[in-house]
Amino acid sequence: MTATQLTLMQIDNYGPWTVTPEPRREMDLQTMQSRLFADLAQFVGARGGYVFFTRFDNMVAVTNGLDRTDHELLQESVGNRYPVTVSLGVGVDEVPAEALETATGLVQNAGSAQSSDRSEAFAGSFHDDAADDDVHVAHFDVNDATGKYTDRLNEFDTFINIEQGYASLMRYMREAHGGLSFFVGGDNVIATCPDLSAEEYRGAVDHVADEAEVQLKVGVGSGPTAHEAGIRAKHALEDCRYEGTLVEFA
Amino acid sequence: MTATQLTLMQIDNYGPWTVTPEPRREMDLQTMQSRLFADLAQFVGARGGYVFFTRFDNMVAVTNGLDRTDHELLQESVGNRYPVTVSLGVGVDEVPAEALETATGLVQNAGSAQSSDRSEAFAGSFHDDAADDDVHVAHFDVNDATGKYTDRLNEFDTFINIEQGYASLMRYMREAHGGLSFFVGGDNVIATCPDLSAEEYRGAVDHVADEAEVQLKVGVGSGPTAHEAGIRAKHALEDCRYEGTLVEFA
Amino acid sequence: MTATQLTLMQIDNYGPWTVTPEPRREMDLQTMQSRLFADLAQFVGARGGYVFFTRFDNMVAVTNGLDRTDHELLQESVGNRYPVTVSLGVGVDEVPAEALETATGLVQNAGSAQSSDRSEAFAGSFHDDAADDDVHVAHFDVNDATGKYTDRLNEFDTFINIEQGYASLMRYMREAHGGLSFFVGGDNVIATCPDLSAEEYRGAVDHVADEAEVQLKVGVGSGPTAHEAGIRAKHALEDCRYEGTLVEFA
Amino acid sequence: MTATQLTLMQIDNYGPWTVTPEPRREMDLQTMQSRLFADLAQFVGARGGYVFFTRFDNMVAVTNGLDRTDHELLQESVGNRYPVTVSLGVGVDEVPAEALETATGLVQNAGSAQSSDRSEAFAGSFHDDAADDDVHVAHFDVNDATGKYTDRLNEFDTFINIEQGYASLMRYMREAHGGLSFFVGGDNVIATCPDLSAEEYRGAVDHVADEAEVQLKVGVGSGPTAHEAGIRAKHALEDCRYEGTLVEFA
Repeated sequence: MTATQLTLMQIDNYGPWTVTPEPRREMDLQTMQSRLFADLAQFVGARGGYVFFTRFDNMVAVTNGLDRTDHELLQESVGNRYPVTVSLGVGVDEVPAEALETATGLVQNAGSAQSSDRSEAFAGSFHDDAADDDVHVAHFDVNDATGKYTDRLNEFDTFINIEQGYASLMRYMREAHGGLSFFVGGDNVIATCPDLSAEEYRGAVDHVADEAEVQLKVGVGSGPTAHEAGIRAKHALEDCRYEGTLVEFA
Repeated sequence: MTATQLTLMQIDNYGPWTVTPEPRREMDLQTMQSRLFADLAQFVGARGGYVFFTRFDNMVAVTNGLDRTDHELLQESVGNRYPVTVSLGVGVDEVPAEALETATGLVQNAGSAQSSDRSEAFAGSFHDDAADDDVHVAHFDVNDATGKYTDRLNEFDTFINIEQGYASLMRYMREAHGGLSFFVGGDNVIATCPDLSAEEYRGAVDHVADEAEVQLKVGVGSGPTAHEAGIRAKHALEDCRYEGTLVEFA
Repeated sequence: MTATQLTLMQIDNYGPWTVTPEPRREMDLQTMQSRLFADLAQFVGARGGYVFFTRFDNMVAVTNGLDRTDHELLQESVGNRYPVTVSLGVGVDEVPAEALETATGLVQNAGSAQSSDRSEAFAGSFHDDAADDDVHVAHFDVNDATGKYTDRLNEFDTFINIEQGYASLMRYMREAHGGLSFFVGGDNVIATCPDLSAEEYRGAVDHVADEAEVQLKVGVGSGPTAHEAGIRAKHALEDCRYEGTLVEFA
Repeated sequence: MTATQLTLMQIDNYGPWTVTPEPRREMDLQTMQSRLFADLAQFVGARGGYVFFTRFDNMVAVTNGLDRTDHELLQESVGNRYPVTVSLGVGVDEVPAEALETATGLVQNAGSAQSSDRSEAFAGSFHDDAADDDVHVAHFDVNDATGKYTDRLNEFDTFINIEQGYASLMRYMREAHGGLSFFVGGDNVIATCPDLSAEEYRGAVDHVADEAEVQLKVGVGSGPTAHEAGIRAKHALEDCRYEGTLVEFA
């Protein structure tokens, strides 16, 4: 049974900081944000988790395999190396959206995202007994994105197509299944999902084709961690590529 | 008169690299991509430019102030420090979308994004005589995003709202004006635009409010570089905040 | 009983790479080297280990607490994100110099540091049962370095003093005790040591005062990992500072 | 005529920060320090300068080619992205040690390295008219270091040999010529020097061979910036390698 452990990582009081004492150089903010994300990706990734940049000031991570001590260390280490701190909330649920609801609520209860009083809040419960179907990862990409878009359109028009496909998918997966889909670069979207059937994935792919006119395909894997589920999903996606199919399970 | 110099930065043959000899760890790819972006942000940003992560394997930069030598150095330095290389195309136009069309075409002409034969292609022409209205930057954010979304909804539902607003804005600005809008984290979108009136910005804000039910506001600045235009835009956005207005020019 | 697990991390075929096809920009090499070190410091440090930059192309790490799988992951992750790869050798011994002898021998047996045939070699044995006195860390610094040097001399003359003190200490500790001492910045030297008495540390401090005319003090701690031993050593060094003593044990 | 512009970069109040409120994790300090250095190397290096890590909390840079505005931007950007700030002093002289004396004095006059009152001090004068012999760079390495040391001794004993050679060279060049020599990893030392003859470089190589029993060779180059002088020095060092000589000028 799916038991997805999700962590919300929220930079404390970031909005006000970016304009104090006056607006900071945008490229410094971009650098700081993306390096913080990269560090979290290394920390979480080396323990089997996945983290998504989401809005950069709020990042969402699948953290099955990381316990309380790991989270405390991550929080301390960020505080030692960055001009900002992060608050963390952790939730576990069969449905990823529910787990994030819990995680977010814990951070919100500790204070506003723009409160100067809240710093390094940390609350949550953890999933203890790992099982091989705890995490379900779906790795989507766009069919022949290079041939249809990247090599033909200007980059922004390519981006618009990918982006409209993503906007459609993220909403559908959230509403239909409580799955959370994240754009991860190129033409790739990775979703953390409950246990869904091939039929249900096919429904998502069809929905995006209809609504946004973007043809996706998807590989699906499960495992005790996001990394294990995700690697299986990547292999399944390679299968789609070789077989010419739209949905494959590992 | 607007003369926006845009650079397309495309990682060479990245898609195949990510799955050779078999799919690489996703968090390593995320780390590498976001650090490459951070490095480009520092390099370009320290010369007055802006770079946007876009799809990470394809990044778009406003490079007024950077000449051919700067671009060559950037390309060489990436090659010295990363397991991948980048190709660069540069175009100049009054309309950002046209500049990018030129820039993208130059890279496409050098070979496919997934060709193992193309490496470190570089072509383009540069804008020589800087003028104070070369670059127009519009900095949008969402009205009271923290109060309405971040502190109330779970992070993914907040993200959906921000994302739908962005998807609507990016398409509108592209189609109506040839402006290119980039999500830069939090509730912020930065656009490189031709010379537009307050009325035209108001039209964009209204369009997004109607289509996506997200209330934006926007500060606009111009300057010889993206940084100078952008800092003015940020100050104008602060003016919106204090005045309670939706469109302000620096 | 001390059981120090040491890992040698050697960049494969680095010398030739730095001059192929012709000499690369020095600042790119410096950037790449120091970021690789920083990444290893985060990876190893988050698992309780210490890594020292040593010569940057060869780094030495105290890796009690890291097992074979951790090492494999580190090696894979570097290969995914850098233009170079690393070979690893691991040894365990009561005397750190002996552990490093083993670790280095394993890497040397796999091929020359300048062989293009050797890539990602990995060999070694690991310390299984952690005990609280496995690792002994001594944290040295220079008495009143700021008042005597940093605030008075030009930075290079300060550096010469610190450096001569370090050169004296590193040689003494190696020869007298098989301890390995690493400069870690500022006026700090951290040594991984066998189980030594206060008298023996006093001997080292006196030796450096005599030979290099630099007055050190030292805090010593032990623990199951370098981090735990090291934090205790830092606290002991704070004790020296408050008590005006030259050697303190945690 | 040589006109070396040197910048001292000193982290403000770093010592106290590292132990406040209590000693911070050593690997976080190491990570932060080395990444700060890497960023400075990119910033300075992309403008033709060289920066050396020296003691990490105090770094020395050859900044011919960087003006006041560049330094201000560097200082602002560090402040935007790190938990610490840096003070800068700049001096120009025919003799590098004299230039650093000036640079250091300016920072010292602004306050102690351990004063919480001093933050982002910046003072200095700049070298305006670049000439092709402003900067002299000597690139030393150890003859057959791989064959004699790296592939035969344990890494620490190799390091001791390299280090003793470096300690001897740094002192000799400073005392005899006012040149500043920096270990840059592997078996490499880079020195910023006044205009010296082949005889004088031969004297340095002989001194180290006598005192430390380490056989160096050296390539020397000059140019308007450290990068240009340094690349020529690297090519000259390649000449030593092919010719079997100990001193070569570009």
